[in-house]
Amino acid sequence: MEVGSGSGDKAGFFTQGRRWLKALPVKFKANMVAMVRNLKKLGQDDPRRIIHSLKVGLALTLVSTFYYCQPLYSNFGVTAMWAIMTVVVVFEFSVGATLGKGLNRGMATLMAGGLGIGAHHLANLSGHIGEPILLGFFVFLQATISTFLRFFPKIKSRYDYGMLIFILTFSLISVSGYRDDEILEFAHKRLSTISIGGSTCVIISTVVCPVWAGEDLHNLIALNIEKLGNFLEGFGDEYFKRTWGEESKDDKKFLEGYKSVLNSKNSEESLANFAAWQPGHGRFPFRHPWKLYLKVGTLARECAYRIEALNGCLNADIQASSEVGSIIQEACTNLSIESGKALKELALAIKIMVQPSSADSHIENAKSAAKNLKSLLKSGIWEDIDLLKIIPGVTVASILIDVVTCTEKIAESIHELASKAQFKCVKPTLSTEKLHSGQIQSEKSAQMVNCSHVVINVGDLPSPPSESSSAPNPSKQRMEV
Amino acid sequence: MEVGSGSGDKAGFFTQGRRWLKALPVKFKANMVAMVRNLKKLGQDDPRRIIHSLKVGLALTLVSTFYYCQPLYSNFGVTAMWAIMTVVVVFEFSVGATLGKGLNRGMATLMAGGLGIGAHHLANLSGHIGEPILLGFFVFLQATISTFLRFFPKIKSRYDYGMLIFILTFSLISVSGYRDDEILEFAHKRLSTISIGGSTCVIISTVVCPVWAGEDLHNLIALNIEKLGNFLEGFGDEYFKRTWGEESKDDKKFLEGYKSVLNSKNSEESLANFAAWQPGHGRFPFRHPWKLYLKVGTLARECAYRIEALNGCLNADIQASSEVGSIIQEACTNLSIESGKALKELALAIKIMVQPSSADSHIENAKSAAKNLKSLLKSGIWEDIDLLKIIPGVTVASILIDVVTCTEKIAESIHELASKAQFKCVKPTLSTEKLHSGQIQSEKSAQMVNCSHVVINVGDLPSPPSESSSAPNPSKQRMEV
Repeated sequence: MEVGSGSGDKAGFFTQGRRWLKALPVKFKANMVAMVRNLKKLGQDDPRRIIHSLKVGLALTLVSTFYYCQPLYSNFGVTAMWAIMTVVVVFEFSVGATLGKGLNRGMATLMAGGLGIGAHHLANLSGHIGEPILLGFFVFLQATISTFLRFFPKIKSRYDYGMLIFILTFSLISVSGYRDDEILEFAHKRLSTISIGGSTCVIISTVVCPVWAGEDLHNLIALNIEKLGNFLEGFGDEYFKRTWGEESKDDKKFLEGYKSVLNSKNSEESLANFAAWQPGHGRFPFRHPWKLYLKVGTLARECAYRIEALNGCLNADIQASSEVGSIIQEACTNLSIESGKALKELALAIKIMVQPSSADSHIENAKSAAKNLKSLLKSGIWEDIDLLKIIPGVTVASILIDVVTCTEKIAESIHELASKAQFKCVKPTLSTEKLHSGQIQSEKSAQMVNCSHVVINVGDLPSPPSESSSAPNPSKQRMEV
Repeated sequence: MEVGSGSGDKAGFFTQGRRWLKALPVKFKANMVAMVRNLKKLGQDDPRRIIHSLKVGLALTLVSTFYYCQPLYSNFGVTAMWAIMTVVVVFEFSVGATLGKGLNRGMATLMAGGLGIGAHHLANLSGHIGEPILLGFFVFLQATISTFLRFFPKIKSRYDYGMLIFILTFSLISVSGYRDDEILEFAHKRLSTISIGGSTCVIISTVVCPVWAGEDLHNLIALNIEKLGNFLEGFGDEYFKRTWGEESKDDKKFLEGYKSVLNSKNSEESLANFAAWQPGHGRFPFRHPWKLYLKVGTLARECAYRIEALNGCLNADIQASSEVGSIIQEACTNLSIESGKALKELALAIKIMVQPSSADSHIENAKSAAKNLKSLLKSGIWEDIDLLKIIPGVTVASILIDVVTCTEKIAESIHELASKAQFKCVKPTLSTEKLHSGQIQSEKSAQMVNCSHVVINVGDLPSPPSESSSAPNPSKQRMEV
């Protein structure tokens, strides 16, 4: 029996093995197809990725001609590889990051080279036995101190790469000096090949389809505020639909968009850091107030936390009862729509860089809606209703009132940004016409800038407030845009 | 007059200049003192930083002996600098990160070296003119494809550095082959010096006071949950004190701690990524379920969003009126304290790796407090009170009820973690005694592990629930611990 079952197992094993082997090409094909599809999506999501890859390939090929051209090679010899290395490690996605890394690398090499030569000369004085000991001590001391300094938050955020290269170059140059007497030439060659590699990166990344971190930050902040606006504009309607037991079948994506705002702190900070390195270009001068974007971003995140709470109410088991709903629906929906519109106007103002005065009227409307809501809550109509039934509605109302405060703060910070960055001043009456008619259309193509992951599309922005400020169903309206 | 004022300006300028010069040493001294103080604080906050810096210095000094020892130098020659370079770029703060970078670098060098040699031979076949063209094409193709692959999220998170080194090594080896016929030796030397540098890093970082990213993640998650617990434990008391118009003078730090939880996503993810590279050690086996920590972290962040809303209520202009306060105070405070205690028990359970059963009773208590609160809100006692006065209190109550759900979810995920990671099973009755008497004391020293920025101190954990579950003022109690 045992043997039989054993041979059965064996037969089963072979059958399984054969099946597995037969399935292998099919599986392989499926995997390959999935990978190609993923690759295609990656490129379609942000075509700048493809361009960046081609730029890196171009820079590397250019720099490697050092090896092929006899006159160039005779000058630099094997040290030409430093240029290749520099291109590989310095070339980053955005101009700011590339420039920051290149400057860090160049400056650190210069300083560490000087210090390394000094250390080498000092060690040279101490005789044949003392030299390696002293050199070892210098390397140890320098590496320890520099590594510790890298923990400083300020240094870490802007000069981390420079510190790394400082340690590297100092060690290489001071230690090489022990074997190689032409240490000056070594240092000189290293510096010049690194400059060649670095400037190749900077030139290619600036000239060929440049990616500006500052512009990405600018668009990211505008997009985040727009996402908050989208949620708020649709929220009131959605909430009370659920209160009445209706299940709307519309696309619910606008209710999820805000989630990415909750965790955008890191990407905002790194973009602002890169942006600080980049030179003035296009709409952004050299000393553009990038730090103010971080302030706007922080306030937007605070608003997003409130929206997270609203979303919790939307998905709660207990919804507001229909009695309560009928009382507060209008005021809540108005408040929500108006603050949503205000945020979207603010986002648009950032995006096309005009003074955000067109948002002010919406904020005023939202504030008066909040006042209405408060007086409704104050009125005596509640006495006959069970308090437990009121709670969900009251919670929503109270968070919404809080959201208006957040919106005001965001508007203030954007006003500050607009005045510091000298955004264009467009008269309110003009702005609404201008923003929503011809100009938008003409800017659409120019503004189809996609920001790292997501395509920003100005066409998805609010329709004229004069037409739709009391429109009952903003989410449906947007669907048709 | 004009001349006179001009000379006056000049005299003023000189006086200012002299004053500035006189102030210079004082300023310089003040700056130096401030810097030294900052440096000292940096080291005191986390002494592992000092040890890490010394370790880097040691590794570099060790590797640079290649240059000083004649037998070693005659073997490797100038390529010994690759070892130095490897140490500088691979040595990271934690073992996991160092191992990850070292393995990435080693594997990428091996693969790219093989491919580079292949490319060189292929190009060799195409004659003297064709060779540089074909080599350039290979370099371009390889750099473009690899750079594009680096955008893949999965590759970016784990193999980004490997891809970089792949591009670098392939370019260096294939291009060097054009000038140097001993390309095999070049590739071999590069691989062996990199292995020497990499293994030096890995050995020193693992043997000398190792820093385990996994342990940091473990402690960070526990600390975050403890911070949420601290807030909740103190919140009820603090809120109703303000309702009664009292201004408590206690230290309010426990009310701010949760803010760091809101933005901890990135550090959790990178720690989990590093932890996946590290070998088994101490309490953590090789395949410890690090991903579950991320799940717990996400749920903790969701709870932190609710707490942000509670904090908003705490600092709002309008507080609950004293009439409302007197009705809901007890239930709210109980709920808040019990969920705070539950979270702190959960944090402790993670920290000392036992089954979190001791938290279950607190969760039950919190749930029954929530039930109480709901029935209070249902009762008829509200009819005489102005609704607007009720709102702040009701909002707080409703968010607190939401917090209980969050706490339950966190507890569930920690139960899952505890069963997957096979935490010790301590009987509930034992646990409370054990956790809060002798064992804590003995673990205090072992657990004074500080996690990247903050010192985790187990001594700051809850007192026995049997004594204080109905204690009116938990924040004062903690002050005395």
